[in-house]
Amino acid sequence: MPRPKKHVFVCTQNRPQGHPRGSCVSSGCGAVMNEFMNQIQARQLFDDIALTNTGCLGPCGFGASVLVYPDGVMYGKLKVSDVQSIIEQHLLGGEPVKSLQVPTEVW
Amino acid sequence: MPRPKKHVFVCTQNRPQGHPRGSCVSSGCGAVMNEFMNQIQARQLFDDIALTNTGCLGPCGFGASVLVYPDGVMYGKLKVSDVQSIIEQHLLGGEPVKSLQVPTEVW
Repeated sequence: MPRPKKHVFVCTQNRPQGHPRGSCVSSGCGAVMNEFMNQIQARQLFDDIALTNTGCLGPCGFGASVLVYPDGVMYGKLKVSDVQSIIEQHLLGGEPVKSLQVPTEVW
Repeated sequence: MPRPKKHVFVCTQNRPQGHPRGSCVSSGCGAVMNEFMNQIQARQLFDDIALTNTGCLGPCGFGASVLVYPDGVMYGKLKVSDVQSIIEQHLLGGEPVKSLQVPTEVW
């Protein structure tokens, strides 16, 4: 891919049911990943926004976790309905969505 | 994890043997990932350097692929023996290792 303006990393870590750390899979990361993919495709943003699935990003209690670089902004507890505002306000508009970021003690 | 100074993303994408795109697994990414992990642990760099495995980063012909943010530097065709110079020159010293970067038309 070309070097993107924004690179979205979606944690897609899974763990067995009942694992004490939980996982982003159990918090619905698959649907969040799909929503990013669908919106990037629908808006034809492939040249500017890259999307990559990852292993554990750390804050398992705040899944689904999404990390945006080069800004270094970590979002947590994301739902499918949060994706549009991240794309429009942050990825395209340049302003991180503060209400969706994880607490500063987490990241 | 705390917000790191450098975040190392190692592609650990696998594909079936004989797949036309190949994969970073077939290019030895597992050993590269382990070497980063071992050196980060041996040098106790956990506070400053994060390490995350990812799905496909794009340049499959240049595996093992490693991407460093917030710099946005993509390394390619990495071997275990390349990891030490990336850690010392780039992650700690701040100067990307140009000889190990993928061509500019790739990233």
